[in-house]
Amino acid sequence: MKPSIARYLPVLDWGRTYSRETLVNDLVAAVIVTIMLIPQSLAYALLAGLPPEAGIYASIAPIVLYALFGTSRVLAVGPVAVVSLMTATAISQVADQGSAGYLAAALLLAALSGGILLIMGVFRLGFLANFLSHPVIAGFITASGILIAASQLGHVLGINARGHTLIEIVQSLVTNLNQINPVTVLIGVAATGFLFWVRKHLKRSLLALGLGAMPADILTKAGPVAAVAVTTLLVWGLGLDSEGVKIVGAVPQSLPPLTMPPMDVELIRLLLVPALLISVIGFVESVSVAQTLAARKRQRIDPNQELIGLGAANLGAAFTGGYPVTGGFARSVVNADAGAATPAAGAFTAVGLAFAAIALTPLVHFLPKATLAATIIVAVLSLVDLSILQKTWRYSRADFSAVLATIVLTLTLGVEVGVSTGVILSLALHLYKSSRPHVAEVGLVPGSQHFRNILRHKVETDPSVVSLRVDESLFFVNARFLEDLVLNRLSGNKDIRHVVLMCSAINEIDYSALESLETINQRLESIDVRLHLSEVKGPVMDRLQTTHFLDRLSGQVFLSQYDAWRTLKP
Amino acid sequence: MKPSIARYLPVLDWGRTYSRETLVNDLVAAVIVTIMLIPQSLAYALLAGLPPEAGIYASIAPIVLYALFGTSRVLAVGPVAVVSLMTATAISQVADQGSAGYLAAALLLAALSGGILLIMGVFRLGFLANFLSHPVIAGFITASGILIAASQLGHVLGINARGHTLIEIVQSLVTNLNQINPVTVLIGVAATGFLFWVRKHLKRSLLALGLGAMPADILTKAGPVAAVAVTTLLVWGLGLDSEGVKIVGAVPQSLPPLTMPPMDVELIRLLLVPALLISVIGFVESVSVAQTLAARKRQRIDPNQELIGLGAANLGAAFTGGYPVTGGFARSVVNADAGAATPAAGAFTAVGLAFAAIALTPLVHFLPKATLAATIIVAVLSLVDLSILQKTWRYSRADFSAVLATIVLTLTLGVEVGVSTGVILSLALHLYKSSRPHVAEVGLVPGSQHFRNILRHKVETDPSVVSLRVDESLFFVNARFLEDLVLNRLSGNKDIRHVVLMCSAINEIDYSALESLETINQRLESIDVRLHLSEVKGPVMDRLQTTHFLDRLSGQVFLSQYDAWRTLKP
Repeated sequence: MKPSIARYLPVLDWGRTYSRETLVNDLVAAVIVTIMLIPQSLAYALLAGLPPEAGIYASIAPIVLYALFGTSRVLAVGPVAVVSLMTATAISQVADQGSAGYLAAALLLAALSGGILLIMGVFRLGFLANFLSHPVIAGFITASGILIAASQLGHVLGINARGHTLIEIVQSLVTNLNQINPVTVLIGVAATGFLFWVRKHLKRSLLALGLGAMPADILTKAGPVAAVAVTTLLVWGLGLDSEGVKIVGAVPQSLPPLTMPPMDVELIRLLLVPALLISVIGFVESVSVAQTLAARKRQRIDPNQELIGLGAANLGAAFTGGYPVTGGFARSVVNADAGAATPAAGAFTAVGLAFAAIALTPLVHFLPKATLAATIIVAVLSLVDLSILQKTWRYSRADFSAVLATIVLTLTLGVEVGVSTGVILSLALHLYKSSRPHVAEVGLVPGSQHFRNILRHKVETDPSVVSLRVDESLFFVNARFLEDLVLNRLSGNKDIRHVVLMCSAINEIDYSALESLETINQRLESIDVRLHLSEVKGPVMDRLQTTHFLDRLSGQVFLSQYDAWRTLKP
Repeated sequence: MKPSIARYLPVLDWGRTYSRETLVNDLVAAVIVTIMLIPQSLAYALLAGLPPEAGIYASIAPIVLYALFGTSRVLAVGPVAVVSLMTATAISQVADQGSAGYLAAALLLAALSGGILLIMGVFRLGFLANFLSHPVIAGFITASGILIAASQLGHVLGINARGHTLIEIVQSLVTNLNQINPVTVLIGVAATGFLFWVRKHLKRSLLALGLGAMPADILTKAGPVAAVAVTTLLVWGLGLDSEGVKIVGAVPQSLPPLTMPPMDVELIRLLLVPALLISVIGFVESVSVAQTLAARKRQRIDPNQELIGLGAANLGAAFTGGYPVTGGFARSVVNADAGAATPAAGAFTAVGLAFAAIALTPLVHFLPKATLAATIIVAVLSLVDLSILQKTWRYSRADFSAVLATIVLTLTLGVEVGVSTGVILSLALHLYKSSRPHVAEVGLVPGSQHFRNILRHKVETDPSVVSLRVDESLFFVNARFLEDLVLNRLSGNKDIRHVVLMCSAINEIDYSALESLETINQRLESIDVRLHLSEVKGPVMDRLQTTHFLDRLSGQVFLSQYDAWRTLKP
């Protein structure tokens, strides 16, 4: 165990061994990430319905705080697509977009999310993230990607399109189709096409031209910057803003301001559940990015410490004019690929962004929103992967149902309903399956001491001994099922003298199931059949020994099923 | 499979073979049950805060409808203590006791409960009742018994005491202590003492006097009738109602009226959750009574058909001036003991009660409420059994926590919060346990082919082969746990060449866990360790074979752990 301060402040670990070489690596990575983050931060602020500077502010303090408290060496924390969408959904329920209340709600949401993450971290509740199954996460990310792309389509066409579900967005697009602005469409479609081409083909072309892998990669990642620069120059040079092309406009030239989230009890009550969902989704997304990147270098991530790092980052966002943040995939991969060696790269990125916030914001005045929307669409469409439906369909109908429900409900009823239903449904399906467990009647595989299902294998059996292997822990949701099963197996069969419950798959017997076993034992005794147990696991046996069940058991407890068979067969 | 009409109408089954002897048995039982039910119905109506006749009406139509649709031959359906308490709690949230709205809400609650039970029956959702664990039910019944007894204390003392939690009731009792009516206290305490004595000692005394078991039993059960008769005569003879003794007063002399539950959407919304809880609790109580009594005679209960029987009974109550009903323990036991052979006994009881409703109601005019309260207190205190706390404490802290939470929250926050929290907590604890399963490293028990935990048994092992037995199905809540576990076991150990996952306790591998297994396989392969599986169950193997996992697996799948050991040990 590390001393407790170092445990909560990983910076003390890597800071001690910081060298000149590491510094160079971190600085190079910081420059590359900064350039990439400027358009991305503006774009995600647009997605969240916030002024563009909020995206930049949300990238500065959080990245520094995560560098101090987080355990990943390369994770880049800031605004990300899914969390931006969830933020827009949550705060537009309590305030109108563009109002002061909307900004304040974003700060409060970040503060709540930060508080929730910190509390989860201190109480080591990182395991709660496991309640989001992989298929539910995959479905949710896919559906969010579709929603986000749809929501940005309006910007590409120059249409005011609002809404938090696919239906609302499509309705809004269709209703306002007459607002279409041809110049905006030209810019938007060209930028989208260009960015798709960059993503799909540029790297290969550059490699074919003999460029090294690293510069080719960086040039490819700089695609959005190029799109931003070219379209901004076009709008400025041709005065296209007077043709109806919506631009970013004036962005204050300032360091992140000190802000105070509003401490309004009613607002807190309204935002608590969204904040919880944002925290959990953000945490899951961030940890999976961090683990993927850590595995490459055989480093390890401590999920509970990650909660503290992300909590601090979100509190940082709340007090410096930002909104909820988490570890982003794209920015973290770029950071890692660019050679970032320690979290100091993040701190340098923050310095770069602070400089941008002061000096470069006038340059984006004429940046068309359509270009930002194009960068979002191209980025999120890579999240969309409907193959999860096909994969889960083949593997398990339960998993498929959970994915399908998550996707359909996220698209039609919004992100909050979608992900909550996905989680609840996957838990409910798991419990339902546990409530009717698979039970195999087993017999001896000839020439071995091994017992298998009589329906699947050629095995030896005896009419007076029934051996049942219950493939599930015994607990309240299936306790009654077991009673019915055993009694039904015996009904009308006079040859049976012994019932052996083979307990190799029984990992727990709770109090309800204990009562059911007592009932079964009594009922069998009353018709002169003995109940035996075999292969009871250590922890289960320990617990049974605290009760009178073993004294009352009409039969014996055997170490192995083979012992039971040898003893009981006539 | 029975023809479908007979399946939904069990009366067609037993009605066909109805004989003269059965008729006599049923008639005798009906007379005894009717006499017992008159005071009980009045008392439970008092508990529900409804006029006394509602209790009688709730015993007539429901008992007939259950006789037509239910599967138990002896279950007596009508008002019961716990459901009466839950009814009072639910409807006093939407209307003031004594108002017309209160009566209407009771009808609506019965209609909703009937509808829910019918729907559950048609969709065969009886298994949902299994989600109430035995300890939660025991805790809830105990806490309800305490609440009910406390709520009736006011009537025994002549004090107006209201409230739905123990705190409210005690506060109300203390505040109004000055209202104490000495004559009421005399009657109430005497009746309570007498009924306790009857319950504890009368039967034994009668048997000692040489009376047969059956008449002794009937006389004991008639205790409440005697208390009612004597105290009514006293009040009437001595004019004690003018001394402040509260009496039942005028009860309309009429058959059950035809009533229409109010179809108010807002009211339905408010009562839906309470109706759901009442339905589930009532169903669980009723089925457990029915199963206990059926087991005595080797009959069987069909839980899904029971839902239909109880649903019909509750709809009957809703349209004939009653309130939610279910199968009661005391009345059913009396019915069975008195020799009821078929549900026709229930129909005859209904006729008896209908006669009472027309002809006998004037006789209860001077019946003191204190006597009814005394019968309730004595009846419900037999439900109170705090030993469940001690039993679960010894057996399992998880079960203990669920019982304790149920009892404490039912007493302090009311029945609805109590039982809901109990259910949610027991599910959450189960999932928490599943999220960190027991994993044993196993070795060969010498001289056998059996593998057990190396920490508990003397077993053979080899440093190059690690065999892990995971004692839990692999699914999303523990998928990541397994990844961490396997990788941690291997870290820093260069001798290991093979990892065998012994799957005898793995009853399911869901899609999330499949992805985790793929990750484990890849990570092990990258450090040149092979992953093998052994004792994979049929259904799990079937599913794995639909994927590419088995092709990519670096090792083999062995039928038994012994095969794996023989093949892999160097």
